[in-house]
Formats: sequence, structure tokens, C-alpha cells
Amino acid sequence: MKLLLIHADKMKYEVKKKTKVAEDFDGKGYEMNEVLVAFISVEKGDNEAVAEKAVEEILDVAKKVKAERIMLYPYAHLSSNLSDPETAVRLLKYMEDLIKNEYEVHRAPFGYYKSFEISCKGHPLSELSREIKGEEEEVTKALKDEEKAVS
Amino acid sequence: MKLLLIHADKMKYEVKKKTKVAEDFDGKGYEMNEVLVAFISVEKGDNEAVAEKAVEEILDVAKKVKAERIMLYPYAHLSSNLSDPETAVRLLKYMEDLIKNEYEVHRAPFGYYKSFEISCKGHPLSELSREIKGEEEEVTKALKDEEKAVS
Ligand SMILES: [Mg+2]
Repeated sequence: MKLLLIHADKMKYEVKKKTKVAEDFDGKGYEMNEVLVAFISVEKGDNEAVAEKAVEEILDVAKKVKAERIMLYPYAHLSSNLSDPETAVRLLKYMEDLIKNEYEVHRAPFGYYKSFEISCKGHPLSELSREIKGEEEEVTKALKDEEKAVS
Repeated sequence: MKLLLIHADKMKYEVKKKTKVAEDFDGKGYEMNEVLVAFISVEKGDNEAVAEKAVEEILDVAKKVKAERIMLYPYAHLSSNLSDPETAVRLLKYMEDLIKNEYEVHRAPFGYYKSFEISCKGHPLSELSREIKGEEEEVTKALKDEEKAVS
């Protein structure tokens, strides 16, 4: 899972057009002020454990920058290894549910062309990117590192 | 090189704070309307040939969406394999020079924290991402594919 986190004075979007993979959505758009926007690419192999780690990162940054609310914004352009749409929607909903307990949160709908306006604050922590990997991938990487150290 | 291309009603930025790798820059910021904004990560191994291919992509999209001008905006958050700062600045300047011949263009300075406001139009071609690779990488890949086909 790839995250691009932007601490914004304002984020506003408007639904323009459905794509073939659009989830059901009745709204027309949404606007939030003093918001941490998480642009999210759900990738192949991502699961609930990855989503939980991503939520930890998002909440950690939100608290650090003192964001007042969080917007989850599906964003296919951060990865060339995207999951199938069903997995993406399932994990984005799961993330929304986890965050709801601690923070005001809005999840933008998956699978729509949207116009948006964002104003990024510009302080050093106002733009951050994160790559979240699953346990297995981490273990694989750790093993490889060990192999390298040995050989 | 990674590109994120956004066709925007408006893009405005303001320089906030220098980083250690900041290039010289006298301005305070810039604003453009009806603009194709190219957010750019220059990556390890990128060279002038890659920059030329990236410019072709940018010009191609600018014409397709009928953007009136182009902004080049260095953006580290699209890649985890960034080039050194000197290469990045050299290639970004080269891209600016190439585009200048055909289009009104502004290049945002490298190595500064900046606030920005962007309003993405939301039509199907208003957000696109591109990965531009060098000849060698392509050749390597082609050879590998051939090997696979043979074996
Ligand atoms: Mg404020």
C-alpha cells in the first residue's frame, strides 16, 4: 500500500463521472478544512494487516501535525501494482472504520473521476509518503538481508 | 523518472523554507491558470535521454487536454529511488529548456518546502501517471523477455 499524506487547509472534491469499477455512492462530493488527506493506492497482496499498519501511520502523522480530521482518498496513481477493485474497496472501508473510533473521517468513493481542490500547508511535515508492506514481504526482505550478510 | 500529470484550473505555490539541497531561487512563488502540472521525481539512472522522453509525454498530454501552459514541479514523493539533487536540477532545467520552445512553462524550484493550491479539473485525462525509463533499462527488459521466450 502506498500513501501520500498531505496536511491541508482545505480539501474539496466533486464526483464527475463513474468508471467501470465504481462503488455505490450517492453523494456529490465533500469538503473538509484542517485535514490530513491520505491519498491511497491499495496494492496486490495488501490485506487487513497492511491496512491496520497504514491506519497507524495515518493517525500518527495526523496527531503530529495536529490535523483536526482525516480524509481517505483512493488514488491509483501512486503505484503500478494495484490490487483488484474489490480488495481496494474492502480495505479502504476497513481503514475508515478503524479511524472512525479516534478521528472525524471521510472516505471519498472509489472508482470515480473527481475534480478536487487542495491547499497544502507547506510546513516540513505537510507532505509525506509511506510504503506499507505485509509481514510476509518484510520477512522475505529480512531473510534476503541476512543472506547478503552471510554471503 | 516518475511523472504525475494534473490538468488544473489553477496551480499556485509559495516558497516556505529551504532544505539542504535547495537550488538558488529568488522568487516567492508563482501561479498559473489552465495549466498542466507535471509533478516529477527524477530517479537514479535518469539522464538527458529520459528527460527528452518525459518532455514528449508532457507535451503530448498538454496538447491532448488543450492545456494553455505547463508547470514543472519537483516532487520527491513519487519514488523511493531518487537521483542525487544535482542530477535532478540539471534534468529539470533541461526539461524546462526543451518545453520553452513550444509552450509557456514555469519550473518550480528544487529543494524547498512549499505550500500549494491546485484545482484538478476532474475529466478522465486530468490525472495521469507515467514512468519513463532509459534505453538501457528497456533493452535489458527486452533481452530478458527474449530469454524467457527462448527458454
Ligand atoms: Mg489554518
